[in-house]
Amino acid sequence: MEVQPDRTSGSKYYDIVIVGAGPAGLMLSTCLARWGYKIKHIDNRAQPTPTGRADGIQPRSLDLLRNMGLKPAIMANKPARVYEVAFWDPPKSGKGIERTGTWASCPSFIDARYPFTTLLHQGMIERVFIADLEKSGVQIQRPWTITGFSSDEKENPEYPVTVDLEHVDGTNKETVRAKYLFGGEGARSFIRDQLKIGIKHKDPIAFVWGVMDGVVQTDFPDIKMKCTIHSEHGSIMVIPRENNMVRLYIQIASSTDPDWSPRKTATEEDVQASAKKILQPYSIEWDRVEWYSVYPIGQGISDRYTLDHRVFLGGDACHTHSPKAGQGMNTAFLDAQNLAWKIHLVERGFADRSVLKTYEPERKEVAESLLAFDNKYAKLFSQRPPAATEVQAASENVSEEAEDNEFIKTFKASCEFTSGYGVAYGPNSFNWSEDHPAQSHVLHPKGTKLRTGRLFINSDVTRVADANVVHLEQEVPLNGSFRIFVFAGKPSVTRQALKDLTTYMNRKGSFFSTYLRPDIDQVSYHERHNPHSWLYTFCTVFAAPRTSIEISRDVPDLLARYREHVYADDRWDRRVPDAAAAAHAKMGLDQEKGGVVVVRPDGYVGMVASLVEGSDTVDALNQYFSSFCTKKLGETMAQL
Amino acid sequence: MEVQPDRTSGSKYYDIVIVGAGPAGLMLSTCLARWGYKIKHIDNRAQPTPTGRADGIQPRSLDLLRNMGLKPAIMANKPARVYEVAFWDPPKSGKGIERTGTWASCPSFIDARYPFTTLLHQGMIERVFIADLEKSGVQIQRPWTITGFSSDEKENPEYPVTVDLEHVDGTNKETVRAKYLFGGEGARSFIRDQLKIGIKHKDPIAFVWGVMDGVVQTDFPDIKMKCTIHSEHGSIMVIPRENNMVRLYIQIASSTDPDWSPRKTATEEDVQASAKKILQPYSIEWDRVEWYSVYPIGQGISDRYTLDHRVFLGGDACHTHSPKAGQGMNTAFLDAQNLAWKIHLVERGFADRSVLKTYEPERKEVAESLLAFDNKYAKLFSQRPPAATEVQAASENVSEEAEDNEFIKTFKASCEFTSGYGVAYGPNSFNWSEDHPAQSHVLHPKGTKLRTGRLFINSDVTRVADANVVHLEQEVPLNGSFRIFVFAGKPSVTRQALKDLTTYMNRKGSFFSTYLRPDIDQVSYHERHNPHSWLYTFCTVFAAPRTSIEISRDVPDLLARYREHVYADDRWDRRVPDAAAAAHAKMGLDQEKGGVVVVRPDGYVGMVASLVEGSDTVDALNQYFSSFCTKKLGETMAQL
Repeated sequence: MEVQPDRTSGSKYYDIVIVGAGPAGLMLSTCLARWGYKIKHIDNRAQPTPTGRADGIQPRSLDLLRNMGLKPAIMANKPARVYEVAFWDPPKSGKGIERTGTWASCPSFIDARYPFTTLLHQGMIERVFIADLEKSGVQIQRPWTITGFSSDEKENPEYPVTVDLEHVDGTNKETVRAKYLFGGEGARSFIRDQLKIGIKHKDPIAFVWGVMDGVVQTDFPDIKMKCTIHSEHGSIMVIPRENNMVRLYIQIASSTDPDWSPRKTATEEDVQASAKKILQPYSIEWDRVEWYSVYPIGQGISDRYTLDHRVFLGGDACHTHSPKAGQGMNTAFLDAQNLAWKIHLVERGFADRSVLKTYEPERKEVAESLLAFDNKYAKLFSQRPPAATEVQAASENVSEEAEDNEFIKTFKASCEFTSGYGVAYGPNSFNWSEDHPAQSHVLHPKGTKLRTGRLFINSDVTRVADANVVHLEQEVPLNGSFRIFVFAGKPSVTRQALKDLTTYMNRKGSFFSTYLRPDIDQVSYHERHNPHSWLYTFCTVFAAPRTSIEISRDVPDLLARYREHVYADDRWDRRVPDAAAAAHAKMGLDQEKGGVVVVRPDGYVGMVASLVEGSDTVDALNQYFSSFCTKKLGETMAQL
Repeated sequence: MEVQPDRTSGSKYYDIVIVGAGPAGLMLSTCLARWGYKIKHIDNRAQPTPTGRADGIQPRSLDLLRNMGLKPAIMANKPARVYEVAFWDPPKSGKGIERTGTWASCPSFIDARYPFTTLLHQGMIERVFIADLEKSGVQIQRPWTITGFSSDEKENPEYPVTVDLEHVDGTNKETVRAKYLFGGEGARSFIRDQLKIGIKHKDPIAFVWGVMDGVVQTDFPDIKMKCTIHSEHGSIMVIPRENNMVRLYIQIASSTDPDWSPRKTATEEDVQASAKKILQPYSIEWDRVEWYSVYPIGQGISDRYTLDHRVFLGGDACHTHSPKAGQGMNTAFLDAQNLAWKIHLVERGFADRSVLKTYEPERKEVAESLLAFDNKYAKLFSQRPPAATEVQAASENVSEEAEDNEFIKTFKASCEFTSGYGVAYGPNSFNWSEDHPAQSHVLHPKGTKLRTGRLFINSDVTRVADANVVHLEQEVPLNGSFRIFVFAGKPSVTRQALKDLTTYMNRKGSFFSTYLRPDIDQVSYHERHNPHSWLYTFCTVFAAPRTSIEISRDVPDLLARYREHVYADDRWDRRVPDAAAAAHAKMGLDQEKGGVVVVRPDGYVGMVASLVEGSDTVDALNQYFSSFCTKKLGETMAQL
């Protein structure tokens, strides 16, 4: 996408000031930089995270990184992959520990492309983003900090935010103006404090954790898996890492202890001694320790994510919790991604400023679920091990019906949530529901398995132009555009409906023709995703074999312009083994008549409509986009 | 693997001198450098290939690059992927061209991991190897050339080869001594000429080809696919490339033309004008041309690949052919890989020097097949298009029984060959046959689908230690070791057989105990592949669910030392949908009793044996390795 011209005279005007170059800040910065925004990005550390810290990339986050083209650089670091979690407890009789069960970290009932957690040092992940930012011309300004800010739309409607920045050693200062300010500063957020936004504690209990990364020699058989181990000597969590390392989490103190102090600490040797006791009868010795840290952490959630929709918070500034579910970085990514495209829609003049109000409720609800999950998980993890009789050995042929103990049950029930595939945004202008302003008989056709506010379902299709087998949900990169998937069913059945769809799209006042690119006459022949509009990318999927599809004959010109976004739904899928058109079947769309799916720029389903002859499908799309777009869209196209 | 100490005092002694840094030279250099050899590698070009040249990586070659850890770096260049080939011919009636059929470049009857051809500029591929070589401390010396050499084992049995090298501008010279000399200099090989090795022409016809890489605008629908187009105005071949480029091959002259001259040429504009005519009624215009070249090429095959098994040839120095089947680089890779591990076995003292004699017959037979294929393919390609009546449109639901024209038939029949999965090495000491010195009732058990001299069959399994789903055939990297896969069937059935296997392996004089590492007592706890021997890596695969396998209980110590090479054959495979143990089933091994498979260091099957109680399995392995190993191995272990 082309870089927008700098609309300001001086260099001290920015589209956004981003404070903090952890996962939240970097994700936001990377999205906005790619879409052409002018960014001031600071961090108070002299260098990216050198070692330790959050490091779990959940399955859905890996999809997102792939959609951004960053997955190969992440995987080049050879991360560990966690496919299963093992539970160890005291045996029914005797001493020591025994495995009481294992469970897939992303069980097969979740249709994930990458059914594993990717474990990698946070600094490596930060560096992947930083390298990408540099390609967009953004450098993180380090070590700089924020000392003050104000926001006043009346004083300056275009650049209402003033931000004071300072080098950490006080040698240099600057004041800049921006349209937005983002606080991705972590749990001790200056911006949140200045805004006097409170923190609620879902659970008043706080813990002190010890965490140790190192290379070990051990005969403990599950050292390469994620394990939660309860023993009479305490509890420990094992997480494999890149470079043959293993991370151990051990709880050092709890606010329920009689002698509780958040400053309680333990030495490296103390933790190693505890680990040795807990792992008995297995032995463990350290070749080297790469990182060791002790930190107190409580559960907290920020009361607000923004006050004025100019200054926003995200990531750990909004939610803190235990490290065990591996959710921190993932939640930070999705906070930032959610905000990025909404700012983009507003600043490009597509969407009304009110859409920014959907950021807090969408993301805060996810954080609430995360804390509820973490709360339950953490309590079980830290309490005395369950009685041996409670423990159900889940060895060979684990069945879902097996009577698991509370701990395993909680874990299983939460897999969908922790994988990232369970994120569900509630109804609003983007996520159609029966209460949405758009009302039409074509909306949300019976049978569809797509759920608005949830991720678009994964499917394999064949690209017609080059016969490549591709992952449909990945075909449109994270380009800030809505992804409109026209499932075109059987060509002979939908010929007229497809023609009508594009005819009414081309009518004045439609969602499509209202938001054409101003430079549409100069667009390159080779533009793949946005030849007509920055707001939409179109994909057409026929329920027919690739060789039977002739783009010039079967696809109306408007959709045919997306030459590399025409697909054949002709791949077999084990989840719908008998379907003639697996992608249509997985979406629950009619395999003859198709349907139209609007996917938000972040990959969540916005609305689903039948593909019908006449103007009804376009009318419904116009109504849907009308609910948040800046311009009035035609609602009665058929009468024009 | 550790680097061998430099056994020579001066720096002018090398294990090998490699001339030419194209695909053959780079593959050989990369393998040997990783295995610790001292290399002098020269190339007479100042820089790697800047543009153009061979660029097709066939499915099996991508497996090989992955096995070397080089695939991510290759794919980072975003190559084009060819899944299908389209055939265009004059229509039955009327003018212009029409699609008469398409065929998968690697049809589903081939069990390939990557069923497509990867297309990428040769220079990018060379740079991936060069970067890897630099990690092993090898720099290509450029631009240097070879001016003479001699080889005399009597004069210097250890370093019999003397090589004279010179900077291309004559400013600098050096003479070095080496154990081996490799000529990977391309079709005009100085070394081959000096050895007075002749070239045979399978087909006396030579052609002049024009080749053009560029970015085009066209309404030709298959521009993103590989196409062979015949028209009344001539023939052309279309191959997609990285960076939105397309390569066109056009035949400019044939030695069958009345006015034939190998120096006949055509300008860029001539070729573009021809292409425009051939593609009618479609239009084509060039945005830019990246590379254009005209070159004459005939089919040729070197009479010998070596005379004395000290000076070897490989790659284009041994075989030239038309560019259309995309085989050149792939054949060069496999020439070099084949030679690399054989030199390694000899130089490490494992194998008798006579194993080097298997290089020429194994690789020359492949080259003969390639030329036979190319000959047939090229003739069809260059002849007048077949009559319209001969052409069978293969549009919807292409069936294998469809009566195809000769051209398509040849193509289909050759898919296995061109994908690289069809390479078949004949019987010799490595590739067991009924005439092999090893003779035992356990050898090549009835039912096995593995074929000696052919690739090990691909299969998915679950690694027991970390529950990762992995590709078994990729689990041992290209480390120069034989890969011994112990398919261990059902643990309760094979318990004694497994125990006996390791008991007899541990006996003095066995193939295993005879070739232990001299530094076995100092081997790192973390060594994954070669804890005992540089000659072998062992993998154990149970036909049981992962959670039922306990390494400490089910795997004898010797095999359990390969902690990360114990697998559960518990993944479903669409090719054997009803098998309880898909990998066992695909190999054709008993799902209860298992079997032992010896895979050569290059991934081809050497021998297959039943896994039985008593000493017979180890006896058979001893006999097999005895046929080429340097030391006498125990043949009657049971009597010891």
